[in-house]
Amino acid sequence: MLDPNRWFTEIDEDNHSAFSLQIKRKLHEEQTPFQKIEIYETVGFGNLMVIDGFVMLSSRDNFLYHEMMTHPVLYSHPDPKRVWIIGGGDCGSLQEVLKHPEVENAIQIEIDERVTRLSERYFPELCQANDDPRAQLKFEDGIQWVREAPAGSVDVIIVDSTDPLGPGEGLFTEGFYRDCLRCLGDDGLLIQQSESPLFHPHILHPMRKAMKAAGFREVKTLFFPQPVYPSGWWSGTVAAKTAIGQPREADILDKPFPTRYYNLDIHRAAFAAPNCFLEAVAREEN
Amino acid sequence: MLDPNRWFTEIDEDNHSAFSLQIKRKLHEEQTPFQKIEIYETVGFGNLMVIDGFVMLSSRDNFLYHEMMTHPVLYSHPDPKRVWIIGGGDCGSLQEVLKHPEVENAIQIEIDERVTRLSERYFPELCQANDDPRAQLKFEDGIQWVREAPAGSVDVIIVDSTDPLGPGEGLFTEGFYRDCLRCLGDDGLLIQQSESPLFHPHILHPMRKAMKAAGFREVKTLFFPQPVYPSGWWSGTVAAKTAIGQPREADILDKPFPTRYYNLDIHRAAFAAPNCFLEAVAREEN
Repeated sequence: MLDPNRWFTEIDEDNHSAFSLQIKRKLHEEQTPFQKIEIYETVGFGNLMVIDGFVMLSSRDNFLYHEMMTHPVLYSHPDPKRVWIIGGGDCGSLQEVLKHPEVENAIQIEIDERVTRLSERYFPELCQANDDPRAQLKFEDGIQWVREAPAGSVDVIIVDSTDPLGPGEGLFTEGFYRDCLRCLGDDGLLIQQSESPLFHPHILHPMRKAMKAAGFREVKTLFFPQPVYPSGWWSGTVAAKTAIGQPREADILDKPFPTRYYNLDIHRAAFAAPNCFLEAVAREEN
Repeated sequence: MLDPNRWFTEIDEDNHSAFSLQIKRKLHEEQTPFQKIEIYETVGFGNLMVIDGFVMLSSRDNFLYHEMMTHPVLYSHPDPKRVWIIGGGDCGSLQEVLKHPEVENAIQIEIDERVTRLSERYFPELCQANDDPRAQLKFEDGIQWVREAPAGSVDVIIVDSTDPLGPGEGLFTEGFYRDCLRCLGDDGLLIQQSESPLFHPHILHPMRKAMKAAGFREVKTLFFPQPVYPSGWWSGTVAAKTAIGQPREADILDKPFPTRYYNLDIHRAAFAAPNCFLEAVAREEN
């Protein structure tokens, strides 16, 4: 039995499974106007951020998520100069984005400033780019941001949100995607975390359908491992205003920063879709 | 807190993490001469087999493991007629192997007959090929089997074993691989489950090194999701007597059986290696 004083446990109620990490101590807990944030020091995974009881990230394995939410889409866009991150308050996606020298401007629009302040304190390794002159940190509602922003004003939108419960809910709707589409330039790409292909097809497929209904011409899901999330198998879905281009091979092979998971082979491989997913996509169309 | 009467929990002591499945009841428990086997009925994952406290398989997600331990290697061999499965007592790998019409003979060499008998009872969907006239079920020690078998007598060896603890231990040694190499025909391929790339590099890399030391000319690891195993991210390592061929494309596109995960894109994608793995491989060579 797991002693609740020594283990943090997240139960996936729908899938009747649970994942636990052994903890040394709770470092912080607060209720913000938006959500409850807890930070733990774990024994094997470094620090852990939990929001409303759901694991957001650990020091040990967040590289998988952050690399796969940024590099595939940035290296698929022919010239990503202007990037928005909706959510992503831990600043890990922002940091990866700013490793791309062609990015001139990256705006993180996080509704809850406390996520960023706690990340600066407990995950400083993710916040190394916060002072980059190309970075802007806005603490606003991402839904309103895309509603009000000028047409064609961004190249890549990264929706790095919580699940569609609480503040993240409106980020999974056709209306939101329609606003994103309007904000994107002609080669514009959007990526959004799209949950577990095994555990959450009821979120993933309606989300893909909403992206297509909003007018995105091409929608493709990519897959990657993420041990601290339910099932350990996660996805991001890329939506293109016109088309998802081929990866910029030469730039990837010559990238001026190290990665721990991502590379050219992984970029291509991540888009390979299992049969069970393809069958569910076929059902989406009906 | 997880009530131990309602949840089965496997703790990964080295990684200070745990995975739990909600159970309806324990269906069976026995201590065999080799190990302790438990079978549970879960709420969300169908039936669950546990050996010595470690999850072996669930009805819900074993398709990932069984498809990836069989089809990539069978479709990489130019003409796989003779197949051995070392371990694999649940018969799931045997069943996948026998879906290939070119296989003339598949021998499962499982040390513990009780695993097979319990699988026949609690996982009948995995045992549909046990009466296939091409199948032979031997209940013997796989290590001795490969030591005594004639040279060049098999095309593909699938090592579908427990972790290198207990009866599985001798299956991760250079001596065992040397015997396997001798038994394989000229185009011969071996695949062995090789644990989690994130949690168990201390098993995976010495195993790859032992395969190379035994004389295998090419050794390549493939990756796939497996939610019920620690970290949810698993691997198999393929070792070739001469070379791992290109996948038989036309045969894969025209395969006479359905798969839920595997297809040609997945075959290629599974071999894409993340940077952290490639760096560890480079250290292997030294």
